[in-house]
Amino acid sequence: MGTSDPASMVLAEVTNRDRTSRIFFSTDRDIDLYELEELCDAVGWARRPIRKVRKAIQNSFLVVSMWEQKGNRKRLIGFSRATSDHAFNATIWDVVVHPDYQGKGLGKTLMHHLIKKLRSEDISNVTLFADPHVVDFYRNLGFMPDPEGIKGMFWYPD
Amino acid sequence: MGTSDPASMVLAEVTNRDRTSRIFFSTDRDIDLYELEELCDAVGWARRPIRKVRKAIQNSFLVVSMWEQKGNRKRLIGFSRATSDHAFNATIWDVVVHPDYQGKGLGKTLMHHLIKKLRSEDISNVTLFADPHVVDFYRNLGFMPDPEGIKGMFWYPD
Repeated sequence: MGTSDPASMVLAEVTNRDRTSRIFFSTDRDIDLYELEELCDAVGWARRPIRKVRKAIQNSFLVVSMWEQKGNRKRLIGFSRATSDHAFNATIWDVVVHPDYQGKGLGKTLMHHLIKKLRSEDISNVTLFADPHVVDFYRNLGFMPDPEGIKGMFWYPD
Repeated sequence: MGTSDPASMVLAEVTNRDRTSRIFFSTDRDIDLYELEELCDAVGWARRPIRKVRKAIQNSFLVVSMWEQKGNRKRLIGFSRATSDHAFNATIWDVVVHPDYQGKGLGKTLMHHLIKKLRSEDISNVTLFADPHVVDFYRNLGFMPDPEGIKGMFWYPD
C-alpha cells in the first residue's frame, strides 16, 4: 500500500526541517495486525485475539486507517471500521486515534472520511454506540443520541 | 425450502380440525421479497426498494424468518436479520411479526432463536436500536438500554 494506491487519500502534508510528514487515509485492509494492536494498546483497550480481529476486518463493510508517513516510514495513527448490510444500515466500530495525534482534529477528519465513504455507497442510516466520554465528540459530527426515543440496547447473557 | 431443510427448525405443531398447522423458523435467504414486503406493510413500515432489500438480505450475517405451514401452504409470519463483523459484534434489524400472530410469544421465540444462532457463531456483542414502544419487549429478553452510559447514535446529514 502506498499513497498512490487508489484506496489511499493524502490528508495533509507538513514539511518539518528537511523531512516531509504526510497524514493519509487508506481503505486497504492489509493492515499489520500487531501494529493495530499497538495502537489499541496505546488508548488502553482490552486485548483481543488477533485471529478474531482479522476476521472482523475481513467482514467489515468499510475499514479506514490513518497513517503518518515520514520519508519511507509509515506509522498507523488511527483506525475505524463499519459493519453494514451494504444497502440501508451501517454501524461504526473501533474508532481510535493514537494519543500523540489526538486534539488535532484528526479523529474528526477520520470520521468525516468514513461517513463520506458510507454515503457514497448509498447507506442512509449511519449509526454507532458511543461511550459516555465521546458522546459530545460524535454529537459535534452530526450524530444524535436516541433520536425520536430510539434506544441503543446490548444483550447480556443471564 | 422445507421443514426438512437443515436451515429450518420446527417451533410448534398445532392440530386444528383436520389440518396440522406448524410454525417453523428458517435461515434460508431465498425469501419471496414481495411476501416480505406484504409482511412489512402489515405492520405499517415504510416501503423500501425491493432491490435494496435483496442486497441487505444477501449482506446480512444472519436472516431468520418465521413461517406458518398449513398442509402445503406456507405463510411468512415473521422476519429478522442481523449485520455483523462475524467476530465480535452483531446488530439486529428489521424484527417483524405479522399482527395476526402477535401476542402469542412468537416475537420472543424468534428473538431467542436469533440470539442463540449469533452466540453459536461466537458473537459476544449483540446489539440493536429499539423504537420507544419496543424497549420493554427487548428489555424482557435481556437487552439493556444504554449500558454503562453507552449511547446509540444516528448520523443526520446537515
